[in-house]
Amino acid sequence: MNNFIYYTPTEVYFGKKQEEHLNEILNKYHYKKILFHYGMSSIKKTGLYDKVINQLKLSKIDYVELPGVSPNPKLSLVLKGVEICKKENVDLILAVGGGSVIDSAKSIAVGAKVDFNPWLFSIKEKTPQDHIPVGAILTISAAGSDMSDSCVITNDSTNEKRGFNSRHNRLLFAILNPELTYTVGPYQTACGIVDIMMHTLERFISPGDDTPLTDNIAIGLLKAVIDAGRIVMKNPQDYDARATLMWANSLSHNGLTSCGREFVMSVHQLEHELSGKFDNIAHGAGLAVLWPAWALKAYKYALNRFLKLSYEVMNVTPTQNKEADAIKGINLIKEFFKEIKMPTTLKELNVEEKDFEELAYNAMFKGKRTLKDVIEVDYKMALEILKSAK
Amino acid sequence: MNNFIYYTPTEVYFGKKQEEHLNEILNKYHYKKILFHYGMSSIKKTGLYDKVINQLKLSKIDYVELPGVSPNPKLSLVLKGVEICKKENVDLILAVGGGSVIDSAKSIAVGAKVDFNPWLFSIKEKTPQDHIPVGAILTISAAGSDMSDSCVITNDSTNEKRGFNSRHNRLLFAILNPELTYTVGPYQTACGIVDIMMHTLERFISPGDDTPLTDNIAIGLLKAVIDAGRIVMKNPQDYDARATLMWANSLSHNGLTSCGREFVMSVHQLEHELSGKFDNIAHGAGLAVLWPAWALKAYKYALNRFLKLSYEVMNVTPTQNKEADAIKGINLIKEFFKEIKMPTTLKELNVEEKDFEELAYNAMFKGKRTLKDVIEVDYKMALEILKSAK
Repeated sequence: MNNFIYYTPTEVYFGKKQEEHLNEILNKYHYKKILFHYGMSSIKKTGLYDKVINQLKLSKIDYVELPGVSPNPKLSLVLKGVEICKKENVDLILAVGGGSVIDSAKSIAVGAKVDFNPWLFSIKEKTPQDHIPVGAILTISAAGSDMSDSCVITNDSTNEKRGFNSRHNRLLFAILNPELTYTVGPYQTACGIVDIMMHTLERFISPGDDTPLTDNIAIGLLKAVIDAGRIVMKNPQDYDARATLMWANSLSHNGLTSCGREFVMSVHQLEHELSGKFDNIAHGAGLAVLWPAWALKAYKYALNRFLKLSYEVMNVTPTQNKEADAIKGINLIKEFFKEIKMPTTLKELNVEEKDFEELAYNAMFKGKRTLKDVIEVDYKMALEILKSAK
Repeated sequence: MNNFIYYTPTEVYFGKKQEEHLNEILNKYHYKKILFHYGMSSIKKTGLYDKVINQLKLSKIDYVELPGVSPNPKLSLVLKGVEICKKENVDLILAVGGGSVIDSAKSIAVGAKVDFNPWLFSIKEKTPQDHIPVGAILTISAAGSDMSDSCVITNDSTNEKRGFNSRHNRLLFAILNPELTYTVGPYQTACGIVDIMMHTLERFISPGDDTPLTDNIAIGLLKAVIDAGRIVMKNPQDYDARATLMWANSLSHNGLTSCGREFVMSVHQLEHELSGKFDNIAHGAGLAVLWPAWALKAYKYALNRFLKLSYEVMNVTPTQNKEADAIKGINLIKEFFKEIKMPTTLKELNVEEKDFEELAYNAMFKGKRTLKDVIEVDYKMALEILKSAK
């Protein structure tokens, strides 16, 4: 078991109608000027926008709005946010939306405290030392950005998508009402399910020996997500299943399922290039395609971890043939992705073989990066994975 | 799934030699005067005291010492600590020891911010609004006070032992090095194992329907603790098993295993009276005696929860007779307690039948309290439980 630091300071208000307490929550923290940050029209359609405005008015705290966050949140909007925060002395950012809105808020939050472009944090040339506190109302269970220390931004002038991790990316508070996800459609819901699973699965299948407590928690989370996923695809308004997904969204990426383990997440790194280059590809869909392809390359090199997955998560009956048992587990996960109508080939995402070389090259930072996962993922391996996912 | 607030702000530094970074950790937080709070002679024997002093000197932060915390930490020492904090302008308390030292520090931390006796927090006549930050170096895996919002103090003038929960009881940081528990003897180790298990078990067997994600995490934690417990009893220096116990100690009582569930913990309430009255009874030993007795009264009223425990934690093979399956699970837990040399009868703790009425009466606050667990525990039921545990 490796040494680790565990730091999840975010105060989570979980459950029905929790967004109706926003006013009290805001007043608890004594901030004076809020940047209300959100996406496109969806929170206006669902009525959440009006609710938030109403609560902001009740709180009597001054606020300024910045809408317009798109999927794969863009640096250009972050820079606009930074400018507003500096000019208006914003001391709290309220992000209302999904992972994109929260990540955009996180980048603004660290950017507002420095006099250089926060993209330097994304490409790891600078390390954040301070941030404006961020609170969020989450509207989709997927990215887990509400409790994670991760922030992924796309530089729209260079088309690079980069993630960085920092304690300054941890939110002050998160309001998680599963009812707010009732309106998320089946495709986005399924993408979310995959993303949630992958945050734990990529931590679970990682270099190193077993870590029994962390492993058991990871196994329990994956089983709960698969069960809830099946329920939600049939009945989108099943509260308990939506609640399981939402809470798993947070726990799967807050660090809990990697305590004592290596943290590489090479499939995530590869996928960022895919959905970064093709704006119409959802991150979860990209992961559903890439993980099984990666796993079929990797299973021999972490056989015990894959067997744990097969036996304890996917209920594979042990046989004498361990490798076959491992493959069976991987295929069952792939089957689950198909069952919830996720793509499992790049073809289904309209990515053609002619794009593979460039994707692999850029994902590995112009061929210079090697990810030391249970297998080393360099340009060559990235290309192999893409080819086998075609 | 009930609504809940989840708040675990404590920064955990987990792993080998982490206490050797105390100096850097302290300097990160910019405090100016520390109260170094600890127990009796044990940290001097193990050399931890010298290490801490050395780190304090390295940090160049001024400090004052308050030793003398006993098991079942006493209000009289808390009051001494409060006086020191006020007089010396202490702005950080460093607790080095087990749950008793940390709880004593927590009580001092809230007491130093008010001009009345902090016992009023313990008996819930007042609610804390502020606290001095507390950091800890943990030396025994048991109480989980390092991440919990709980604080249990004994009023040595009235002999009452009372616990209260507050966000102000959450620590700023906790240094958890499993190696520091190598020297904990078999009896105290076993008491710790029981305490860790009970923090989750009492949350797991609680009123309400299943909460799949929380349940799976609880099941995984209990299984990991039982496995690690068996290893540690044979090999006290097995790092990974000690690490599992230490991390489970934190996660079992930080709220994770009750998210979305009722929180009553009636066996803990009853046990506090037992170890409060008899200073020689360890809390974990008391729990080992009382839980099976309570469970055999309660199983019919939460059969599904007990069956989950039997089938998913204790590996009972399901039969047609559900009640028998539930009882089998309870008995297997009792067997595990015996296996790790814990008492399972009050007789083994030298508690005599003549004491039962007074114990039940005081545990239920002079007969006035009713705990609404899966069964209602009032004076009469408390007495029945004690009798069946004789």
